[in-house]
Amino acid sequence: MVGGGSGAFIGAVHRAAAVMDGQIEVAAGALSSTEEKSLASGRELGLPEGRVYGSWTRMLEGELALPEEDRVDFVSVVTPNHVHFPVAHAFVKAGFNVVLDKPMVHTTEQAEELVDAVEKAGVVFAVTYQYTGYPMVKQARHMVREGHLGEIRKVIVEYNQGWLARNVEETGAKQAEWRTDPGRSGIAGAIGDIGSHAENLAATITGLEISELCADLTSFVPGRRLDDDGNLLLRYEGGAKGVLIASQISAGEENDLRIRVYGSEGGLEWRQEEPNRLLFKPDGAPEQVLKRGNDYLCEDAKNATRVPPGHPEAFIEAFANVYSSVAATIRVARGEQPGDGMAHDFPTVHDGARGVRFIEKVVESHLSDEKWTDA
Amino acid sequence: MVGGGSGAFIGAVHRAAAVMDGQIEVAAGALSSTEEKSLASGRELGLPEGRVYGSWTRMLEGELALPEEDRVDFVSVVTPNHVHFPVAHAFVKAGFNVVLDKPMVHTTEQAEELVDAVEKAGVVFAVTYQYTGYPMVKQARHMVREGHLGEIRKVIVEYNQGWLARNVEETGAKQAEWRTDPGRSGIAGAIGDIGSHAENLAATITGLEISELCADLTSFVPGRRLDDDGNLLLRYEGGAKGVLIASQISAGEENDLRIRVYGSEGGLEWRQEEPNRLLFKPDGAPEQVLKRGNDYLCEDAKNATRVPPGHPEAFIEAFANVYSSVAATIRVARGEQPGDGMAHDFPTVHDGARGVRFIEKVVESHLSDEKWTDA
Amino acid sequence: MVGGGSGAFIGAVHRAAAVMDGQIEVAAGALSSTEEKSLASGRELGLPEGRVYGSWTRMLEGELALPEEDRVDFVSVVTPNHVHFPVAHAFVKAGFNVVLDKPMVHTTEQAEELVDAVEKAGVVFAVTYQYTGYPMVKQARHMVREGHLGEIRKVIVEYNQGWLARNVEETGAKQAEWRTDPGRSGIAGAIGDIGSHAENLAATITGLEISELCADLTSFVPGRRLDDDGNLLLRYEGGAKGVLIASQISAGEENDLRIRVYGSEGGLEWRQEEPNRLLFKPDGAPEQVLKRGNDYLCEDAKNATRVPPGHPEAFIEAFANVYSSVAATIRVARGEQPGDGMAHDFPTVHDGARGVRFIEKVVESHLSDEKWTDA
Amino acid sequence: MVGGGSGAFIGAVHRAAAVMDGQIEVAAGALSSTEEKSLASGRELGLPEGRVYGSWTRMLEGELALPEEDRVDFVSVVTPNHVHFPVAHAFVKAGFNVVLDKPMVHTTEQAEELVDAVEKAGVVFAVTYQYTGYPMVKQARHMVREGHLGEIRKVIVEYNQGWLARNVEETGAKQAEWRTDPGRSGIAGAIGDIGSHAENLAATITGLEISELCADLTSFVPGRRLDDDGNLLLRYEGGAKGVLIASQISAGEENDLRIRVYGSEGGLEWRQEEPNRLLFKPDGAPEQVLKRGNDYLCEDAKNATRVPPGHPEAFIEAFANVYSSVAATIRVARGEQPGDGMAHDFPTVHDGARGVRFIEKVVESHLSDEKWTDA
Repeated sequence: MVGGGSGAFIGAVHRAAAVMDGQIEVAAGALSSTEEKSLASGRELGLPEGRVYGSWTRMLEGELALPEEDRVDFVSVVTPNHVHFPVAHAFVKAGFNVVLDKPMVHTTEQAEELVDAVEKAGVVFAVTYQYTGYPMVKQARHMVREGHLGEIRKVIVEYNQGWLARNVEETGAKQAEWRTDPGRSGIAGAIGDIGSHAENLAATITGLEISELCADLTSFVPGRRLDDDGNLLLRYEGGAKGVLIASQISAGEENDLRIRVYGSEGGLEWRQEEPNRLLFKPDGAPEQVLKRGNDYLCEDAKNATRVPPGHPEAFIEAFANVYSSVAATIRVARGEQPGDGMAHDFPTVHDGARGVRFIEKVVESHLSDEKWTDA
Repeated sequence: MVGGGSGAFIGAVHRAAAVMDGQIEVAAGALSSTEEKSLASGRELGLPEGRVYGSWTRMLEGELALPEEDRVDFVSVVTPNHVHFPVAHAFVKAGFNVVLDKPMVHTTEQAEELVDAVEKAGVVFAVTYQYTGYPMVKQARHMVREGHLGEIRKVIVEYNQGWLARNVEETGAKQAEWRTDPGRSGIAGAIGDIGSHAENLAATITGLEISELCADLTSFVPGRRLDDDGNLLLRYEGGAKGVLIASQISAGEENDLRIRVYGSEGGLEWRQEEPNRLLFKPDGAPEQVLKRGNDYLCEDAKNATRVPPGHPEAFIEAFANVYSSVAATIRVARGEQPGDGMAHDFPTVHDGARGVRFIEKVVESHLSDEKWTDA
Repeated sequence: MVGGGSGAFIGAVHRAAAVMDGQIEVAAGALSSTEEKSLASGRELGLPEGRVYGSWTRMLEGELALPEEDRVDFVSVVTPNHVHFPVAHAFVKAGFNVVLDKPMVHTTEQAEELVDAVEKAGVVFAVTYQYTGYPMVKQARHMVREGHLGEIRKVIVEYNQGWLARNVEETGAKQAEWRTDPGRSGIAGAIGDIGSHAENLAATITGLEISELCADLTSFVPGRRLDDDGNLLLRYEGGAKGVLIASQISAGEENDLRIRVYGSEGGLEWRQEEPNRLLFKPDGAPEQVLKRGNDYLCEDAKNATRVPPGHPEAFIEAFANVYSSVAATIRVARGEQPGDGMAHDFPTVHDGARGVRFIEKVVESHLSDEKWTDA
Repeated sequence: MVGGGSGAFIGAVHRAAAVMDGQIEVAAGALSSTEEKSLASGRELGLPEGRVYGSWTRMLEGELALPEEDRVDFVSVVTPNHVHFPVAHAFVKAGFNVVLDKPMVHTTEQAEELVDAVEKAGVVFAVTYQYTGYPMVKQARHMVREGHLGEIRKVIVEYNQGWLARNVEETGAKQAEWRTDPGRSGIAGAIGDIGSHAENLAATITGLEISELCADLTSFVPGRRLDDDGNLLLRYEGGAKGVLIASQISAGEENDLRIRVYGSEGGLEWRQEEPNRLLFKPDGAPEQVLKRGNDYLCEDAKNATRVPPGHPEAFIEAFANVYSSVAATIRVARGEQPGDGMAHDFPTVHDGARGVRFIEKVVESHLSDEKWTDA
């Protein structure tokens, strides 16, 4: 693990997710940006002494120095955004499998370089758009693919948060500080942090590609340097239309990622805050509430769950599904298990690259007087 | 009553709403577009023989011929859209109070002429944007006005229907036929029929004025001549932003008018399909569910209700609130009661004119390559 | 109308409900317990001078003195409980159709006398258990009858209110005063006022008969003379089991009448506070949300509705369904319309009598040390 | 860990819960009822060779043979019910801390012996009533204790499941087999398996003690040897009343554990299937929706959570809270950390013993003709 040392919120979540299914343990780490903190964090986690590294470059060297079978099976990179590219790129080039936080990198150029590197190295590479790890998202994807909705006409995807409704970055909130800092967060605020999750969710479920978009971004809170609210009209290849909303100033909302998809034969609705339910609204028939864990769901949804219906699973379990799929994929690649189950069901480097491009195009549209910007 | 004869869905709703509170009875009518049907419908309703008219022009003459105290107290016009203007204009000019269905008229020119006529005649004039008759909409308006949300930053207003997801206008559905016919419905389909309700709801609650808008309209169903789906980005005077969605092809949705308003201090959420509840989401404190009929609500919300908390009121009651306010306003104008209670709490000719202009501007934006159209 | 004069809450609801569908108008009345108030209330309602009576006995005489075709078509009795029997009995014996508020009468003896009288007179007689007028209750009844749930095993019916959590009867709340007064309300408080609605709802939907019951009643509020909370175990003929809860001290609840029914093949759930939805939970398949107004519902549910799906109907509309069914039944009885549509779909004198017996048996069980009391 | 080997559903859940917070790892195990399976399961989990035991007696011997600092910190017992007592008792007597599945043991006699043993040994002993590990349950407990509801008057606690609506124990469902077998499950079916969770939830939140109860148990499914449905009236010390429902034949329900508590000043409602929300219904003020992870919650609720508001936590996280509290309590007992945070917030041997007594009393009441059985 690179990054995610003591006090880093997301590091603990990655670890809880990774170990949940008893397949993965943290074996080595360069857990912080300074040598001292890295070593302290590694010891706190109880890592074996020789595998606690003072920096990610040392870790790369150290692991490469080990016999191949003793090296880490994959590297999880959970650093702030601006350190994603160099770390991920170096490990990929050295032949390591990688799990990387989103947004993958800062520019399309970097993204394309990373795509090339991954393809050349032939490694397993996942981007933790963890919300698509929810089983009912997999069920939604299945139902669209199978034609239960008919031809898709409309997508409304939203990510409403309110935690940046006040200027919390100036009162010491660490999570708010780097997210509102262009140097660390990139060219976009809300759009990069959560709009990209919305984009990934819609793309995963519908398989549609955005052809044109029209964006209006705002920084509502005085002094804020990046957008904290964004509203988009979308046009998809093939004629479907969409609306994408991403906001961090929607006061009173917590983590309200939700999507509605409408086709010629019916609609679907899913909300991250009640993730165990998926609404299916067939035209002319009663609405259905599909629930996680049931036999009537598709295989992908059933594979991605642990406890029976009515025993809810949630955020950490969705996150764990990304890790478990990576683990399964590595085992399949090594011939340790056949290619079924959860293998190959995680967001890839291509999802990551598409997300980076999306952020760039949204900002381009925002700055343009043209109604439509090619995406 | 003009229009709304046998078989006209909305006529029966207007009558049920009008008589609900025991203040209004239907006294005269020209209930259909042909003399024969008008007379038959009037008799079926049990109207007094001399007050059943074969056409609205005869009704106007007939009522004017009566002594002033025997005339109808107001005229309710529930004809198809294209007949709104001549009827309403004539009755207003003759000094009658008028209740008119929405959208008020077809063009801003007509709207302005009607505004002038109403102001000159000094009559009571209401447009039945009945959704703003719901008590919890009045409560939402109150909370915004009183500053419970702080400065308003964002509005998301939606009206999702699915009943036109198929080409029902070609299979004999009368309601669908005229709504998808430019000759009777005007220049817009979904935007005129339901988008204007969404506009009115947002304007009523927030008091904000749209300064610019960007619209993308679609006719998804082959052969349809008007839009059946519209998505808008809104910019308000003062800097707030908005999204407006109106769709009649959102398969599986019924009459899903809903609004969310976010300010610097908290958010509000209301849905027409569960109209007795209003969610208030103060920043940093538990979400509140305000419920119709309770003492803790504002006076306007309490006046607009009939039965105790937990005994739900719904669509017809909201509609009745428009009529009851018109009745109260007429009584106040005549000095029959003091100016409190429900008087002057209905959508006016100005709401109607703003709605007509909104429809025109949305269509203008849709046809434009400019990102923003002045509204 | 007998009772329901100025200021009587339920009188105005009865009138709004009665006139809603344009089939009924209030033609005569003895609206209060004193001559003076009766006359004043009658005039306020605009009743014709000769049909405003000072007492119900005068009204009976006066209407009988009219030619048969000029008399009221039915009498609606909305007096306090203790006046139900003499008024209803007298009008029935005189051959009038009657609509009577619940609980029908105070004792099983009176109930049986009334059943006899109704049968002898051959009149139409309805008891306003208005909650069974909701269309989705009719749908639930249909689904049980048609076997969608398999064999019924379990019923959980509840009526939770909180408005008597404090001693409001001593601070001038008129509705609370008579309901907590044994002289006017009868031997039971919450069980009589709302428990009887719960009993009627369960019986209407399931058709099951209670064979034995076990009751625990409580008066929680100091000084209260009747129960304000009751909890019951039920055993039904044929082996099904049940729980019935009726409470007026469940602080924070409004009018939370709800029912769940479980059979060998699935379950149903309905809540009065969201009356347009009915949950159907088939074993092993996704939960379904059936919604009022849709084509997929049964005929009884479709007949009992006025506006399209998504335009909610509520309490007054459910109440109106009782009146509209009475009106249709009278028309059928007179040969004015064929026997279909809404005719004969209202709670009868037998429902009323069963409700009275239920109240007696609950009180008997409460006072007994025996576990089970025959019902 | 004793029990919970390959294929045992609950073993994997215990392990996922235990390791979630990075404080616990599985160090030794006797994971199955036969030596062969135990060894295979231990190897599969990657346990160190010397710590994989063929039986729990070998494990007890083996661990005792180690230097004290090398022994397991606690033993988690997840065997079928009938093996709970001997294993737990032996480890407690040997001075090991123990985590034991519920119901704790089969008889009050065993329960009392275990209570004595725990008190003598002075060990940490937890029973995994995991549902009380949910943060919003801790918040509910806090609000009752702090008097936010006033004096508690009424409790409605339910646990509705439908998975035993059919005779699945005869078609190979392992989970159903032992639960419906008196030899392994004890004297009660649904009451023991889930009714005891309901009892624990109500007791945890309200602190009330049941004084008398009246139970009606049923075996609905032909051939079933234990109750699959139970309904209870409860009387609490001090005058509060209650209803407890536990059913495994409520077809269509999944894991619907829920509770409502009403006091003189307001009510609370919580549902396990939407565990991140707690409804608070203060008398005369708007309903509040309290949500996990927020600053406005009590310390116990805030300690028992990992991710920010709106990122839902669920069943495994609640389970993990029991383990994390045990770990904290052991660290406190050893002087490794001060006595705050999560320490001492888990269900104890006394909760376990009360649960065993509850099951016995329910069965006693069921078999009795007396209305009330002392509890």
